[in-house]
Amino acid sequence: MPDVSYKDSQLYRVRHSAAHIMAEAMLERFPKAKIAIGPPIEDGFYYDFELPRPATDEDMQWVENRMKEIIRGNYAFSVREVSADEARAVFADQPYKLELINDLADGRVDENGEQTAVPAEKITLYTQDTFTDLCRGPHVASTKEINPNAINITYKMPAGAYWRGDENRQQLTRIYGTAFETPAELQDYLHRLEEAKRRDHRVVGEKLGLFTFSPLVGKGLPLWKPKGAILRDTLERWLRDVQIENGYEPVVTPHIGNLNLYRTSGHYPYYSDSQYDPIVVDDEEFLLKPMNCPHHIQIYKSEMRSYRDLPVRYAEFGTVYRYEQSGELHGLTRVRGFTVDDAHLFVTPEQLLEEFVTAVRLIQYVFNTLGLTDFRARVGVRDPQSDKYVGDDSLWQNATDAIIQACQYLELDHTVEEGEAAFYGPKLDFIFRDVLKRNWQLGTVQVDYNLPARFELEYVAEDNTRQRPVMIHRAPFGSLERFIGILIEHFDGKFPVWLMPVQVVMIPITDKHVEYANQVAARLRAQGLRVEVDAGKSRMGAKIAQHREIHIPYLLIVGDKDIAANAVSVRLRSDEDLGAMPVSEFETMIERVVAEKSLELK
Amino acid sequence: MPDVSYKDSQLYRVRHSAAHIMAEAMLERFPKAKIAIGPPIEDGFYYDFELPRPATDEDMQWVENRMKEIIRGNYAFSVREVSADEARAVFADQPYKLELINDLADGRVDENGEQTAVPAEKITLYTQDTFTDLCRGPHVASTKEINPNAINITYKMPAGAYWRGDENRQQLTRIYGTAFETPAELQDYLHRLEEAKRRDHRVVGEKLGLFTFSPLVGKGLPLWKPKGAILRDTLERWLRDVQIENGYEPVVTPHIGNLNLYRTSGHYPYYSDSQYDPIVVDDEEFLLKPMNCPHHIQIYKSEMRSYRDLPVRYAEFGTVYRYEQSGELHGLTRVRGFTVDDAHLFVTPEQLLEEFVTAVRLIQYVFNTLGLTDFRARVGVRDPQSDKYVGDDSLWQNATDAIIQACQYLELDHTVEEGEAAFYGPKLDFIFRDVLKRNWQLGTVQVDYNLPARFELEYVAEDNTRQRPVMIHRAPFGSLERFIGILIEHFDGKFPVWLMPVQVVMIPITDKHVEYANQVAARLRAQGLRVEVDAGKSRMGAKIAQHREIHIPYLLIVGDKDIAANAVSVRLRSDEDLGAMPVSEFETMIERVVAEKSLELK
Repeated sequence: MPDVSYKDSQLYRVRHSAAHIMAEAMLERFPKAKIAIGPPIEDGFYYDFELPRPATDEDMQWVENRMKEIIRGNYAFSVREVSADEARAVFADQPYKLELINDLADGRVDENGEQTAVPAEKITLYTQDTFTDLCRGPHVASTKEINPNAINITYKMPAGAYWRGDENRQQLTRIYGTAFETPAELQDYLHRLEEAKRRDHRVVGEKLGLFTFSPLVGKGLPLWKPKGAILRDTLERWLRDVQIENGYEPVVTPHIGNLNLYRTSGHYPYYSDSQYDPIVVDDEEFLLKPMNCPHHIQIYKSEMRSYRDLPVRYAEFGTVYRYEQSGELHGLTRVRGFTVDDAHLFVTPEQLLEEFVTAVRLIQYVFNTLGLTDFRARVGVRDPQSDKYVGDDSLWQNATDAIIQACQYLELDHTVEEGEAAFYGPKLDFIFRDVLKRNWQLGTVQVDYNLPARFELEYVAEDNTRQRPVMIHRAPFGSLERFIGILIEHFDGKFPVWLMPVQVVMIPITDKHVEYANQVAARLRAQGLRVEVDAGKSRMGAKIAQHREIHIPYLLIVGDKDIAANAVSVRLRSDEDLGAMPVSEFETMIERVVAEKSLELK
Repeated sequence: MPDVSYKDSQLYRVRHSAAHIMAEAMLERFPKAKIAIGPPIEDGFYYDFELPRPATDEDMQWVENRMKEIIRGNYAFSVREVSADEARAVFADQPYKLELINDLADGRVDENGEQTAVPAEKITLYTQDTFTDLCRGPHVASTKEINPNAINITYKMPAGAYWRGDENRQQLTRIYGTAFETPAELQDYLHRLEEAKRRDHRVVGEKLGLFTFSPLVGKGLPLWKPKGAILRDTLERWLRDVQIENGYEPVVTPHIGNLNLYRTSGHYPYYSDSQYDPIVVDDEEFLLKPMNCPHHIQIYKSEMRSYRDLPVRYAEFGTVYRYEQSGELHGLTRVRGFTVDDAHLFVTPEQLLEEFVTAVRLIQYVFNTLGLTDFRARVGVRDPQSDKYVGDDSLWQNATDAIIQACQYLELDHTVEEGEAAFYGPKLDFIFRDVLKRNWQLGTVQVDYNLPARFELEYVAEDNTRQRPVMIHRAPFGSLERFIGILIEHFDGKFPVWLMPVQVVMIPITDKHVEYANQVAARLRAQGLRVEVDAGKSRMGAKIAQHREIHIPYLLIVGDKDIAANAVSVRLRSDEDLGAMPVSEFETMIERVVAEKSLELK
């Protein structure tokens, strides 16, 4: 997710210009190619082409080299404004450009395919060297602003893309490139890409035995194997306990609800594209629960509430089901069923700011404890152009003010972004940057005046009048499935010890040391540690390699000397050898590491 | 659930005869009444009538008194065999009896409405005093075998019932009665009925704030409020930990599955009457999960298994959804969504007996820990007349033998009952008798050769051949919802301390004692205890009454003297006053009570 300032940056101009240079080189290689669009994107740029034949690795290498030559030519980027007819003449044999020009002239979409309502009076063209493109810019002044050793188009295979994203239209070849300001940045980026591929949570999750999928159960529906279930449960129990300490109360609600519940909430038909079809039962229709909020609201409504009861904070690890196109599914990060660490706070208007601040603090605590310290906040407010939002302007203003006040009070690094609000209210999302510098939207805190009104929620105020509470929706992890997917990639499967499904593996040197290994294991298990004994027939070296492969934090090798000294020889997953230490010393060390939720092993 | 011997008992004959006597008295009171059927049932008997006007309390009292007179008349029950035509003459103005006679003669159903294939050559009639009924008996020899002071027909309101249970046919009035051998037994029974009504888990659950229902969410779908969620979670966590100690591994699976999964398992269409309609997604159909087994099987199948890996024991608190007619729904004990404390064990044939025994032992441990000590086992085997079962005879025999061997090995009080098997294999059910002497079917352990075959499960045996594992299905609680419903009624909401959602309420005598109360509460909470402080404005007596009403185990009253002595004044929910004791002493006491899962308070 780019910073708001990305579009104003030199890097953005460099990438945009590199896209034009790539198109120039491509047209030299494929003189009959038809060119479509070529925008900068988060990590680089692309350009879509209709090619007379598939592009080969050799073509790509040739084009990359040619781009470097063009860059070294120090060509200026010049801009000129022309009429639509002049533009049509320039692009007479480029049908995609002609379509774009027509749309620009008619005011339908701009040259990047984005909707716009205003017909363009003038059309701008940018030219470098021999190549002219239909473009609004901005670009670098000259190709000499681009470092030829900091561009790359061969790191990623060309991919298919439909013209205008419409699967009924021409399929094009999308060629990706990237550009940085320095070669070191490019190398760092390419390294992180390689690393991300190696750390793919689907691969690491399989290796660690965390989860699996089955076509007979269904696409996008993970089955958590024992080790994954333990990891999941450990995260869940911890957050549950933290929440209870912070005055949250657990609730449990069913995974279906009457369609009228969602009609009342407005989730149906608003979100019906992402919902499963209703199930008809007798004369009722049920929906597989897409959201937990309406259920929690029914618990709130099961009693008459007094101002003395507020805030009411209901928390549930609630599994919800949402339809995703099968092509969109991806491991744990894009699934059809996921568990939200959901809570709904029902507060008086006077409590809103404090409760919002406290909810944000709890999320900060959660992220910091997990060592996810590189995060920022995004305040999502209404897109003033859109009519998809519900509720009074004044309530939106109240809610937005409260969120921004809370950010200021917490001195939170935050940006305000239009169009990122929920349909029922503004929200604050946490954007976490992982060790590979990828941005992930995680926790969220949202203010909602809408559902309390739709469900006619009330409490009896101190003056005995009936008042309406405000709701706060919040979830630190968001989706537990997706969060674990992100954790796997961030930690490369080397989770902090307290989260590891298996924390210790005992390796007896020979069969006669097995009994002692079992004794130590039992002693550690009695402390709540997760310990396995590997009494298998493999050789010592093979055992160590195998357990290190799945990142077991502590390998305890035991032989005659260890038994004599009531000790264990400790090998860390980092491969550091701590040598022999008394069992009690190891026990103290690991208990401290677990209790402190340390990211270290000692 | 009656013992198998009930039908052969004197009590059965007494009740059956009392039903005839009730019909005699009813025909005196309502000479135009039409009589239908009148069988003995578990706790008494009933008779269905078509009445010319609704029966009043006065009618019922008259009939009960008249029955006592008839009983005191020492009339013999005489039996005679007649032809169908002779029987038709006797019941010329009783259309229901005429229909039954026709069916008997044609061999369709017997006089209790049960299916039978054999046409009756002779029809038996029983007569006492002035009344003759179509009946196979058995009956008492004379009404003097019935104690007139041990019968009752007025304890239960007459209810509606359709002739032959068919809602398209005549609605009749069902009048219930009961009879015991002694007046004391009757009184005890009536008392237990009263008590059961008072303890109705729907009433007690509401009072204790455990759960609620919402028509907007749907019928039969409980919403667990915070206190109920804590109770539920406490039970779940305990069983989960016990299971892990016993070598079970947790798994987590989605609440839907592709219809093909259930086609393969045979649950669809076999159980389709109790399943929700499939949900169509793209080109797939999904079922709301009615069973967890097929999901666990997919996890088993996700890896190649070796004999060294077995037994594999997967456990999940898996929420399943099954359709029940809305008229059948009842609080927590009959719901449409419930959580099974499910586990599936995949074992080698050689491991079957030992694993079965161990699974039964775990269930015994669970029940005994909860103080549910009055249980027996029922071995459900095939009904030899029925063809609803799947699988080879030899495998059924193996499985049945293993279960009976296990019962003998465990010296388990058990009965073998035909027709109580699952469609895929025999099973052992635990029948728990609660404090009101009502029987409830709880935990179950089942042997299954069928699903391993249908899913082609395998493991690599020591000789490197592929072999088929056997599955054991087991659930100690069965449905967590139903189990908690039963616990509520069994304990009357006075759960053992470790299960109580709130274990301690601190009651400061005046405002100046609130701070001390909070300190003590914080100290106890740090020990993991669930403590509330009641600093409200109510009077002391009202507070005590209110917390005792919801069975808070310990009320700690604190005033000046307690503060001075670092003590608390302890009042138990039994109303016993333990007086002042040092906080540390109370802490030691309650920690012991909780740790031991004691049924006592001290």
